[in-house]
Amino acid sequence: MLGIKRLSLINNHLSSQFPPIPYDESLDNYRKRGEEINKEVLLRHIFGDSYERIITFRNHMKNDPIFNHHDEAEFSRSKKRERVVQQIASIYFKAIISYEYCKAGPLRKYELLYALCDYDIAVATRISIHLVLYIDAIETLGTSKHLEHIKRAYSLLDYGCFGMTELGHGSNVAKLETTATYDHSTREFIINSPTATSAKWWIGGLGKTSNKSVLFARLIVEGVDKGINAFIIPIRDNQTHDSLPGVIIGDCGKKIGLDGIDNGFMLFKNYRVPYDSLLDKFSSITNDGKFKSIISVKEKRLGTMMVGLIGGRVAVVSAAEQHMKIGLTAALRFSAVRKQFSSDEIENPILDYPLQRYKLIPHLASLFAIRSILLWCNKHLPIVQQKINENPEAIEVSEYHAILSACKGVASWYSSSCLQQCREACGGLGYSYYATLGRIIMNDNIGSTWEGDSGVLIQQTAKFIFKQVQRNFKGHAIDAPSLKCIKVDHEKLMQFKAKFENSEQLENENSLFELIEYRLNYILYQSLMKLQEATGNSKDMFEAWNKSQVFYLQELAKTYGEYIMMREFAKFVKELEEKCEKTGKVLRKFFVLFSVGLIQKYSASFQDSAINAHQAKVVRESVVRLCGELAEVSIKVIDAIAPPDSIHGSVLGVANGQIYAKLIEQVEKAEEVYDKPHWLPLLQKIKQIKKT
Amino acid sequence: MLGIKRLSLINNHLSSQFPPIPYDESLDNYRKRGEEINKEVLLRHIFGDSYERIITFRNHMKNDPIFNHHDEAEFSRSKKRERVVQQIASIYFKAIISYEYCKAGPLRKYELLYALCDYDIAVATRISIHLVLYIDAIETLGTSKHLEHIKRAYSLLDYGCFGMTELGHGSNVAKLETTATYDHSTREFIINSPTATSAKWWIGGLGKTSNKSVLFARLIVEGVDKGINAFIIPIRDNQTHDSLPGVIIGDCGKKIGLDGIDNGFMLFKNYRVPYDSLLDKFSSITNDGKFKSIISVKEKRLGTMMVGLIGGRVAVVSAAEQHMKIGLTAALRFSAVRKQFSSDEIENPILDYPLQRYKLIPHLASLFAIRSILLWCNKHLPIVQQKINENPEAIEVSEYHAILSACKGVASWYSSSCLQQCREACGGLGYSYYATLGRIIMNDNIGSTWEGDSGVLIQQTAKFIFKQVQRNFKGHAIDAPSLKCIKVDHEKLMQFKAKFENSEQLENENSLFELIEYRLNYILYQSLMKLQEATGNSKDMFEAWNKSQVFYLQELAKTYGEYIMMREFAKFVKELEEKCEKTGKVLRKFFVLFSVGLIQKYSASFQDSAINAHQAKVVRESVVRLCGELAEVSIKVIDAIAPPDSIHGSVLGVANGQIYAKLIEQVEKAEEVYDKPHWLPLLQKIKQIKKT
Repeated sequence: MLGIKRLSLINNHLSSQFPPIPYDESLDNYRKRGEEINKEVLLRHIFGDSYERIITFRNHMKNDPIFNHHDEAEFSRSKKRERVVQQIASIYFKAIISYEYCKAGPLRKYELLYALCDYDIAVATRISIHLVLYIDAIETLGTSKHLEHIKRAYSLLDYGCFGMTELGHGSNVAKLETTATYDHSTREFIINSPTATSAKWWIGGLGKTSNKSVLFARLIVEGVDKGINAFIIPIRDNQTHDSLPGVIIGDCGKKIGLDGIDNGFMLFKNYRVPYDSLLDKFSSITNDGKFKSIISVKEKRLGTMMVGLIGGRVAVVSAAEQHMKIGLTAALRFSAVRKQFSSDEIENPILDYPLQRYKLIPHLASLFAIRSILLWCNKHLPIVQQKINENPEAIEVSEYHAILSACKGVASWYSSSCLQQCREACGGLGYSYYATLGRIIMNDNIGSTWEGDSGVLIQQTAKFIFKQVQRNFKGHAIDAPSLKCIKVDHEKLMQFKAKFENSEQLENENSLFELIEYRLNYILYQSLMKLQEATGNSKDMFEAWNKSQVFYLQELAKTYGEYIMMREFAKFVKELEEKCEKTGKVLRKFFVLFSVGLIQKYSASFQDSAINAHQAKVVRESVVRLCGELAEVSIKVIDAIAPPDSIHGSVLGVANGQIYAKLIEQVEKAEEVYDKPHWLPLLQKIKQIKKT
Repeated sequence: MLGIKRLSLINNHLSSQFPPIPYDESLDNYRKRGEEINKEVLLRHIFGDSYERIITFRNHMKNDPIFNHHDEAEFSRSKKRERVVQQIASIYFKAIISYEYCKAGPLRKYELLYALCDYDIAVATRISIHLVLYIDAIETLGTSKHLEHIKRAYSLLDYGCFGMTELGHGSNVAKLETTATYDHSTREFIINSPTATSAKWWIGGLGKTSNKSVLFARLIVEGVDKGINAFIIPIRDNQTHDSLPGVIIGDCGKKIGLDGIDNGFMLFKNYRVPYDSLLDKFSSITNDGKFKSIISVKEKRLGTMMVGLIGGRVAVVSAAEQHMKIGLTAALRFSAVRKQFSSDEIENPILDYPLQRYKLIPHLASLFAIRSILLWCNKHLPIVQQKINENPEAIEVSEYHAILSACKGVASWYSSSCLQQCREACGGLGYSYYATLGRIIMNDNIGSTWEGDSGVLIQQTAKFIFKQVQRNFKGHAIDAPSLKCIKVDHEKLMQFKAKFENSEQLENENSLFELIEYRLNYILYQSLMKLQEATGNSKDMFEAWNKSQVFYLQELAKTYGEYIMMREFAKFVKELEEKCEKTGKVLRKFFVLFSVGLIQKYSASFQDSAINAHQAKVVRESVVRLCGELAEVSIKVIDAIAPPDSIHGSVLGVANGQIYAKLIEQVEKAEEVYDKPHWLPLLQKIKQIKKT
């Protein structure tokens, strides 16, 4: 059948109804513009030690006809899910993913996810629920007796899901309703869903696929609620795939995007599982039926359990960067080819317009900022995971958690705004499915609310900063290295005046850090004042805290995240400069644009006292000038980082620049393109009705 | 079959696998909070004279099972298009739309579109292309001999489309490539598509439905290019529905949204049409074969032709408001029901959190601002259309065009940002298709680029303002009433200091207008300076103009649009206060929030010199306080304006607040909810592979 389809495609091409399309040199011409960069050095710098493996995965996908976006365009949900399983199976076995393979390096799993996510985050997520959420939970919360589950999972003998979220509770995990009541007579747990809202909900891979689940439930021992604990339980029969007696599993139905993920719900009716189901690293039940935990305070227990589950959030940051990369691949290449308006006969590529440049180039800068923090996250992930085992309350752990929580939010908001700009930058043609922007926008859209609602999660960053400042108030030094720049000296803060008079002085790295550090200190000071004021007219700290979110704590946490991104971006550039001066020089400009962009974004706050109207103008002019300079080189930069055409799937982003030809080819290949509608009789009937 | 399906749904309900769901009083409770309003007075004020007819249309839809979002959830593109035609036919004949009906009032067509757009903009657009774009073009550009086309169109004997945009040109209409060469020997036009990019593209209703088209093509007379002219031409055979010889018609394929619209492309090969095809109000060809036009300057001719086609843009403004209304219906009702976190045992509705209020309430204020300008647009539309016939260059015409161009852009950006916030405000459950937010987001997404790319279109507003200021420089008075507040007195401007010290002084209507008028004057002054500076280092005015967009001309035009929205919002509130004091009082707060929100958004610019750090804080505090007060009454307000449940289609926005029950019902009704996947053999095969 594939053969027949291919044949018909060739026929289609030969029988195109369109006039012949001459070769379009626009992209080639734009590619010649701007400074030179070494594309390979840049990509290797970005991928670091993962370079070879990511490229290998890419090649697996490129050469496999099962990875084909345009085939999938008209797939039903059900067909799409089948395809995703085929895709995962294909790459999993080609790349020989195994327990041993993944243990050989802490980033091994993430490299696979990265490669798949360039194609479609639904594919990456389907496998990451299993490889990261499910397996990491067993590893982090279980003990040696659970190792067999991990090995079975790596061999795909089990396919696991992550049963945390319920219909009634997402962010507030402490209030989950599912119960696991310990029955000492049989040393079993009896799992129940007492209410409709206690149904496990949105569980990826559950709807149609998984036979096992990590389950978060309220542990009841001797009638006493011991808080949320994690279990590993079978849910479907391994042979028949029927859900097990006492377990009801269904599909959550249609979503906005991510059709390839079979999100499901699950209810329990007196479902009994053996004692060893409990993932018992932190808590267990003694042989005489008593609950015991190495973390005595109940409230702290859940936090400690959660802190280990960081892999999913790193994946969200990564996905944000990847979606931006694909959006910008389409929007920048399209903008170099698309021509509209001019003052003479020959129209200009729209990428020549300062407005278009301003729409896109700052997002390219943000992309590198996210990539920089991602490299930091990746580097520190294994260290922190190790540290959690030793001392989950160590400063390294809480600082990592604070940075990741902030950056997860910031990255997801950046990508959402970037993709909307990319869509608009492509005008009407960006609305075609074949431009791929719609698919990416809707897939990316969940980024701000999964793995913890960004607005809620980022509050943990603010709490971390406040705790550090409180230490300081109590006479201790701030022990988080990332907060060394905090100076709780308000008088000095209020006297600060930025010194730059022109763009050159502004764009100096020291000057930029001085400004962002001032911003961080200033918004911290404002937040402290606000919280103090709110405490005075609130019934408790909870209320005061909530009253201080808008314009204060939320902004504090975002600024902190952006400050750390800047710090890592500066490092990224410095190391790149050592590898290749000319490439580093271009990336330094992106760093400056990102940093100046932050000053511009927060200029109202700066203008409270730190900068004046003239300086604000210097900042604006600097943004526009940098966008202009970087637009010139932007096609080369996007060439360096763009995935191959067959992987990003956007007709507007094809590397050879034959955008119109590719779009027409795609449209002419689509179903029923030249057919009369099957509802023609309806049309004819309407005319009849009116005539009589 | 419908019977069988219904029966199965009842069975499904009886056999729900979920625990019984007790009645949820959360929404009822929230509904009791806040000030009282008179919902009917508010809705009648909003709909004005159209109230009865819109409600009648709504009732037609409510009682017609063919309007059912959940039936459509899994429809293919092709099936969806059939359904849209059924829906249009149903309401068209029930409501007895006709030539006479539409002539009885200038807003008659728009009332129909409004009602349909609450259900789905794809339905509204399908019919508006025909009723507004196609028919208005014939009326505006044709002469009495074209009346028969109009009558046939109203009777649905013809279904028309609007052939303007081409693959290669959207915004720059002057560069369209399709040619219509006049052949004096037969007094015909020969239409051709000389290139692939000259294909008419994205033409709504063309792909499968239309048998006629208004066509924009480059008129060639005696070998001379006379610029773009409009024609009315047959494209498909009325009996067979085959495209006519010389015309190639295809479907543009899959889009991001708007599945119900059959956007098509069209190519011509020596297609001959008779002389009377030319819509000849402005230009014609004499009996001896000479081109003549009542507008002698070729460049001006196109602008004059275009200015009459304003109906589509009014529809975009309306759609923005309607999408926001549906998004906020879902997000506000959900937020009143959804509970998460608290400082004690009982969790708070998330609408109680200041952060959630700040996410949503300002958008509700913007909704009323858009509604206010829409009432103005509607009121003046017939006056302006009349005026165009008399003198297309009249100040009333160009001012209307400037205001509409700005407001089209502002409204489309507002709605896009509002809907994203609504989605995030609903957390993960907002990602369900049944929440309807995804459908609306993608349908709304085109708003910023269709009917003229907002960023390009808004430049016409800036040009209008500049022309008025130039008049002033030349010693004439500014003749646009909307610009009377412009004072070209820079010294005074630079000395302006806002006087408010506290929120009461700030929130006074006069104070708010003083501030926004200052902002308008200040950004105008900055733009003038910028353009002057850019002129000095650019090769021509075109380049200087483009260099002055970012931070200047774009902002000038937006501010102007927002200023006019404020003006109309103030009027809207004043008139409402006369009808019902308590309702007016609540709406006045929304007006203040909208206005203070603008000051906050532009606070960096204000802080250049007009307001200080303390005042900036007053502005922020005012925003947060108003969001808090208005959140209390927001459920009543949304109750007043929300369309019925079956029309908005969001399970999160149901009026009775039984959100979880409704979502579960929907999910259990979905296809294959409890079935094993059809690709189970694939899953089993994967386990086999690994075992061997």
